[in-house]
Amino acid sequence: MFESAEIGHKIDKNLYKTEEPVLREALLDAQYELKERGEFPVIILINGVDGAGKGETINLLNEWMDPRLISTRAFAAPSDEERERPRMWRYWRALPAKGRIGVLFGSWYTDPIMHRVAGDLKTAEFEHQIDEIVRFEKMLAHEGVVLLKFWFHLSKDKQKQRLQQLEKDPKTRWRVTEQDWQHFKQYDKFVSVSERVLRETSTAEAPWIVVEGEDANYRSLTVGKLLLKEMRKGLEAQSKEQVISDAAPLLPPIDNLQLLHTLQLDQEYSKKDYNEELEKLQGRLNLLSRHPKFNEHSVIAVFEGNDAAGKGGSIRRITSALDARQFAIIPVAAPTEDERLQPYLWRFWRHIPRKGRISIFDRSWYGRVLVERVEGFCKEAAWMRAYGEINDFERQLVEDGAIVVKFWLAISKEEQLIRFKEREQIGFKRFKITEEDWRNREKWDNYVCAVGDMVERTSTDIAPWTLVEANNKYYARIKILKTLCDAIEKALD
Amino acid sequence: MFESAEIGHKIDKNLYKTEEPVLREALLDAQYELKERGEFPVIILINGVDGAGKGETINLLNEWMDPRLISTRAFAAPSDEERERPRMWRYWRALPAKGRIGVLFGSWYTDPIMHRVAGDLKTAEFEHQIDEIVRFEKMLAHEGVVLLKFWFHLSKDKQKQRLQQLEKDPKTRWRVTEQDWQHFKQYDKFVSVSERVLRETSTAEAPWIVVEGEDANYRSLTVGKLLLKEMRKGLEAQSKEQVISDAAPLLPPIDNLQLLHTLQLDQEYSKKDYNEELEKLQGRLNLLSRHPKFNEHSVIAVFEGNDAAGKGGSIRRITSALDARQFAIIPVAAPTEDERLQPYLWRFWRHIPRKGRISIFDRSWYGRVLVERVEGFCKEAAWMRAYGEINDFERQLVEDGAIVVKFWLAISKEEQLIRFKEREQIGFKRFKITEEDWRNREKWDNYVCAVGDMVERTSTDIAPWTLVEANNKYYARIKILKTLCDAIEKALD
Repeated sequence: MFESAEIGHKIDKNLYKTEEPVLREALLDAQYELKERGEFPVIILINGVDGAGKGETINLLNEWMDPRLISTRAFAAPSDEERERPRMWRYWRALPAKGRIGVLFGSWYTDPIMHRVAGDLKTAEFEHQIDEIVRFEKMLAHEGVVLLKFWFHLSKDKQKQRLQQLEKDPKTRWRVTEQDWQHFKQYDKFVSVSERVLRETSTAEAPWIVVEGEDANYRSLTVGKLLLKEMRKGLEAQSKEQVISDAAPLLPPIDNLQLLHTLQLDQEYSKKDYNEELEKLQGRLNLLSRHPKFNEHSVIAVFEGNDAAGKGGSIRRITSALDARQFAIIPVAAPTEDERLQPYLWRFWRHIPRKGRISIFDRSWYGRVLVERVEGFCKEAAWMRAYGEINDFERQLVEDGAIVVKFWLAISKEEQLIRFKEREQIGFKRFKITEEDWRNREKWDNYVCAVGDMVERTSTDIAPWTLVEANNKYYARIKILKTLCDAIEKALD
Repeated sequence: MFESAEIGHKIDKNLYKTEEPVLREALLDAQYELKERGEFPVIILINGVDGAGKGETINLLNEWMDPRLISTRAFAAPSDEERERPRMWRYWRALPAKGRIGVLFGSWYTDPIMHRVAGDLKTAEFEHQIDEIVRFEKMLAHEGVVLLKFWFHLSKDKQKQRLQQLEKDPKTRWRVTEQDWQHFKQYDKFVSVSERVLRETSTAEAPWIVVEGEDANYRSLTVGKLLLKEMRKGLEAQSKEQVISDAAPLLPPIDNLQLLHTLQLDQEYSKKDYNEELEKLQGRLNLLSRHPKFNEHSVIAVFEGNDAAGKGGSIRRITSALDARQFAIIPVAAPTEDERLQPYLWRFWRHIPRKGRISIFDRSWYGRVLVERVEGFCKEAAWMRAYGEINDFERQLVEDGAIVVKFWLAISKEEQLIRFKEREQIGFKRFKITEEDWRNREKWDNYVCAVGDMVERTSTDIAPWTLVEANNKYYARIKILKTLCDAIEKALD
């Protein structure tokens, strides 16, 4: 992969002097248009061998364009807040908002490459991280992100020369560290690992661009022109904004036998049994949450269900068994402005708990394949790919030690009507019922269909759905608490 | 202060059973109204002696009310991201948004009290932290926050009994730690320090509420009823929303001699001198930014000025001397939704740099006393108190090691017209000129007046304003770079 980056590319000074101002103006122009339209972000990854001009390029980009609209992030050792979350959390945190340019010095590639070179990352895990990256970048591409992945290369001889050169000049000496020379010793291994990574991650959506780093003029113009080209391509593409598509009725299976129809929604459960069992289960949950090994895990509990199915009440039965310092409830409503400027899953990544903590999502990332699908708030392509993205997201959580439990609370259409009417009458419950609830109710059959698809596509071994028959609240709450306790117990074993 | 919390307050079981459901419903009702109106947040501080029911109370609040609208935060040792910022940063981070309830277990009081008890906080610094807290809470009150500060108290004997009791029961044994007994040994000192802190921080805006902790019924009803009372008071008060007041013309001094009028805006500076000096200063800045002691500081540079005065160009001359990984530029425009739900300064606290980093604010917190004042976007009382709040904010930054520099770039009205017209004609500059710029220009005299007041009230020894005569861009940029270098050099000395 690096052959054509060792052949001595060069741009002479005069040509550079002619081209640079033109390029610069065009970049600025594109940058302002990007900002004005605010439809997508640009992410530039800067990776490669030491001394190949990575730092200079970053500074140059900030000089050429309006630095107020660029955020540059370097990734040193993760902070403690980052270490207690999945590997990709810190990169989600660093994503630029739509309309802005994010320059990442080092990136999600740095860790797998460096650990592989150091020999402390097994093949399977290495492959796994690479796969994760490919899926992540695919998601970015689908979200409309313009992603440029630059790899700055120098041959071994040139790298040595370059480091020596930098060391000679008092103005640049500081830039060569002991670590650089350590890395130099591992040049061959580094290049071989990198080559493999680049090959496996050069996808149609996000190809690598290898840049020979020796000649600053060549390097700078190459980066600038490619950046301009991709920005213009993004700007000239069809506006990527989501349009409200026709909310066509969903097609049920031809025999109309739906998953939700197979549930026995009415379940016998007496108040007396409930009270006894509730106390036992809450005690069990409390003990589990204080188990010494609990601090190696986190719990992520997702609550979805029909309106008025009893999500709030079930959540309260869980939280009252817990120390309030330990949990956070995330009510999911319409995204805020900050959130709308990011890829879909960003607003959920924000709330991923640290180890030892519990996040309870009252509605969740499944909104995309439920309400957004049914109401036509997003295009079919967007909710279709959401299943895979969600599975990928949850896998990352589980692999990092999270215990993920997901509940669908199902009530019958008749039971819902009774509860809606009750809510309209009782004082402090009147806030719980809105026009929207009545509108959703009209689309009951479409939701039945969407839930069936959702469960089929996202109930995985590591993060299974639990369908909860919820016409009887007592039964539902007990089933939920029991499922949660079982899941935690299993993980602690 | 604790006398009446040692007299054995008690509520009998039957009375509690009658009152609790009524209180609970009223609290829920108030909570939903709080949410619906979204005008202010409620902050509940839970402090006091160990074993006095702090944890139980927090759990109870989450049980009584809708826990989805409550965020509970406990403060253990600060994370590394927190340690590198001013003391109050982590509390700003934890503030609940308008419409929500934040319960803080431990608070900004915990550290000063514990360190004072441990004997490692000198009197002057202790006093200083207390003053800081008083000002912070005053700001919260002005922002409409309903703040309840509960102190749970137990006499020494009762505390001992309580700890022993908890230890006896296997269900609660886990809650008594070695640390609790350590604290018990220091009971007298703890109570004496706390008493002083409570006395000095029981202000009209934010009085302490001391609650005897022994009897759970008494404790719970007391907290619940007071919370309800304050929430209702907040809800019934005049709507706190900012209204657009008449943007009355500002009154200039009677002789019309304004600070900005005393500047000699046209300054001689040749391009040749500029180029030479620029290179020198950028080199100097670069060296300073790599000085080993620089990592003990951060730099916060504020740019304000007339439209088209050259803020962007000046910022670029600074950043091009720096490593792009080291700085962030924060362009300040209208607040986002998340930001509008918080006290005014919250959106700036968000961007406070870690040690070794530089944050450059392109417009800043001074918006409140400039555009918001001139345009009448906020009430007089709000911008009037902003001067003090800003001084307090900047003092916290400087005390934490930040180097704060503030520039006002001044051009003449004639020069502005020339630049506006130029911007309208040049391709990539057309984004830089908007209708709003022309509107602002009509209020030129009001801005002159507002700037005069601003400088007078916020140019402090530790964070002085630098007025920059900016009709000549070369002169302005050099003055800015030089001022910045001098400030850093002084701090590193």
